[in-house]
Amino acid sequence: MGDTPARSPLAPACFPDLGTIDGVEFASIAAGVKYAGRDDVMLVRLAPGTAIAGVFTRSSTRSAPVLDCQAKIGGTSDGGAAIIVNSGNANAFTGRNGTEATEAVTGAVADVLAIAQSRVFSSSTGVIGEPLPHARITDKLSALAAGLGGDNIKPAAHAIMTTDTFAKGATVTVEIDGNPVKITGIAKGSGMIAPDMATMLVYIFTDALVDQTVLQDMLAANNAVTFNAITVDSDTSTSDTVLLSATGISGVRIDAGNATFTGALQAVMRDLAHQVVRDGEGATKFVEVAVTGATTDRGAHIHALSIANSPLVKTAIAGEDPNWGRVVMAIGKSGAPADRDLISIRFGDVVVAVKGWVSPDYSEAAAAAHMKGENIVISVDLGLGTGHATVWTCDLTHGYIEINADYRS
Amino acid sequence: MGDTPARSPLAPACFPDLGTIDGVEFASIAAGVKYAGRDDVMLVRLAPGTAIAGVFTRSSTRSAPVLDCQAKIGGTSDGGAAIIVNSGNANAFTGRNGTEATEAVTGAVADVLAIAQSRVFSSSTGVIGEPLPHARITDKLSALAAGLGGDNIKPAAHAIMTTDTFAKGATVTVEIDGNPVKITGIAKGSGMIAPDMATMLVYIFTDALVDQTVLQDMLAANNAVTFNAITVDSDTSTSDTVLLSATGISGVRIDAGNATFTGALQAVMRDLAHQVVRDGEGATKFVEVAVTGATTDRGAHIHALSIANSPLVKTAIAGEDPNWGRVVMAIGKSGAPADRDLISIRFGDVVVAVKGWVSPDYSEAAAAAHMKGENIVISVDLGLGTGHATVWTCDLTHGYIEINADYRS
Repeated sequence: MGDTPARSPLAPACFPDLGTIDGVEFASIAAGVKYAGRDDVMLVRLAPGTAIAGVFTRSSTRSAPVLDCQAKIGGTSDGGAAIIVNSGNANAFTGRNGTEATEAVTGAVADVLAIAQSRVFSSSTGVIGEPLPHARITDKLSALAAGLGGDNIKPAAHAIMTTDTFAKGATVTVEIDGNPVKITGIAKGSGMIAPDMATMLVYIFTDALVDQTVLQDMLAANNAVTFNAITVDSDTSTSDTVLLSATGISGVRIDAGNATFTGALQAVMRDLAHQVVRDGEGATKFVEVAVTGATTDRGAHIHALSIANSPLVKTAIAGEDPNWGRVVMAIGKSGAPADRDLISIRFGDVVVAVKGWVSPDYSEAAAAAHMKGENIVISVDLGLGTGHATVWTCDLTHGYIEINADYRS
Repeated sequence: MGDTPARSPLAPACFPDLGTIDGVEFASIAAGVKYAGRDDVMLVRLAPGTAIAGVFTRSSTRSAPVLDCQAKIGGTSDGGAAIIVNSGNANAFTGRNGTEATEAVTGAVADVLAIAQSRVFSSSTGVIGEPLPHARITDKLSALAAGLGGDNIKPAAHAIMTTDTFAKGATVTVEIDGNPVKITGIAKGSGMIAPDMATMLVYIFTDALVDQTVLQDMLAANNAVTFNAITVDSDTSTSDTVLLSATGISGVRIDAGNATFTGALQAVMRDLAHQVVRDGEGATKFVEVAVTGATTDRGAHIHALSIANSPLVKTAIAGEDPNWGRVVMAIGKSGAPADRDLISIRFGDVVVAVKGWVSPDYSEAAAAAHMKGENIVISVDLGLGTGHATVWTCDLTHGYIEINADYRS
């Protein structure tokens, strides 16, 4: 791995103080899966009764741990549960060996913690196509279990990093029926970095008491507007995993439709999603693309992603160029409904184009001034209907090429 | 525009000797639409009876000239016809002004050449969102018409360039029923370059005698496997146009299903398509992605484009890295059917992965040696069916960022 990459210029000032979540314990350790001299395995123990929801990559080449998690989501929550994550090896595209490695690791965790193997969820992230040296992980499980503690979330957030330039965490406490409820999450991800098949892994915990099916619905709905609304380079990992665990220890029951809780959950998920973008490979600008006036929300999302994924839009942002023609191009190619002569575009607060042509009041100097900032907002109104969507991305720079065109060593 | 960009390292050694095509005359002139000191308008006069077929961008924000051409394709071929093309201004996203400019130019060409305006096809390529200064073009039409000649195709190919680093031409002569038939084309395009909304424009001419509906079918079928099978950066222009004109002067009648003629047409189209890729912004490698074993040809095409458009695959190629994990990722994200455990991958002749795992005989040194070449071939077999497709692309380099992140000046 050599040098540690420089911290992203868009990184938050510091890792937040996440405190503890009742019913959740963390441990991490250096198992030498691939990296040397750093923790690379995280173990999480969840109290009996914990409900667990999950959303996963839709890749048709998804990894063995993802397939295993998907099979386990929705099972009984009577006993305790656990999450085991390694960095350095993605256990992806490893054939039958991959399934066997996942079996070995989750089975050993079940034994050490005396819980059902069906309640042990695992993730692997790192290089693909190489067999996971699972004994290096299972050899450390007793030591990991001995180190479990409620205070250990920060080193755990570091243990799951691959080539992230900073650890990612977020927490919100809300009052529900007069009682505090906490939602805390950690994440890793910064695009898909050589030499690793890096990916986005997210683990969120709450002490709220939520039925698994309600929790699953809340996670899926919020995922659509957070983790599914970010893009660094349009490439999709084989390992993307978001797990949401509700221990119920607070005793505060959350039913479907609880806007306070789901709002707080969305805030934590959006915060983590933005941190992943802010750690985008080579990123120097954080970009919000907001599309309104589409025929449907789905159409708005397609347009927003087309803009956010366009190499020409992303390089223009890197060059601080208010090149609205490329935005028009990206709308045109998206495949979703648009009428050229109804499109309006803003960069920040600067009105660039109105109803299909450059605004008579357009000031390129004002637009260029907005582009010089660190946070760029591109707003598009299609003038067709009420569909809307927002996505977040970063610019495309020499840094991205440097990171990804280096020979895998 | 400043300095002329350096000729692409992947450019052909020279512009081919295209000779003449019976019934086709060319002229070009410096009209100062935007560029100074170079020809920027091309006029083509086509003999009475010429059948004209066309395929166009599917962008929903396509330009006024594209909409005008689409309305005219399929009309009578009794009188003469003409094609007028300017570089420097795309006449796109220009509202009603764009339609009026196209009307003005095609109407003036009709007057000067004494042909029907419905038989005058136009293209514009260059910066978007600025009104086309159409009087600069119409003022030069008499001089252009006076300069028409069968020998002028080479300067015409130069006049339509924007930031292309070389002019593009191809020609094939085949014998049909003992008579020679000629197919010759010119093209421009090298991605979508700042400051221009550059595009792909292609004009192909033949002296064969072909009904317009047959010609249209042949063009559409061959377009699917040539110009629709190339990608530089996944971005789609608002102006893409391919026009195929058959003058009939050779007297050799071509019916539907003439494999000799359609094969020759495909060869010319593929040659021009490859030249566009070879002029891709910042390109240092010419890449063929061949997918076999898909459930359908359409599925194979989706997988091949997903690989060819992946920034991670393209940067790996730039770095001469046989990073097959990224190919697996791109297959997984494409949305078309794939079974992880049936996928096989080759780089050149080197077998990398077989049925979902790295080949036991895989030699990274051999794969790396292939990646050092100028022509890269990535072959994927999905093991599912007989669907197949091939696409061509280039690598993603610092040169692309340099070209596209420069401030528009």
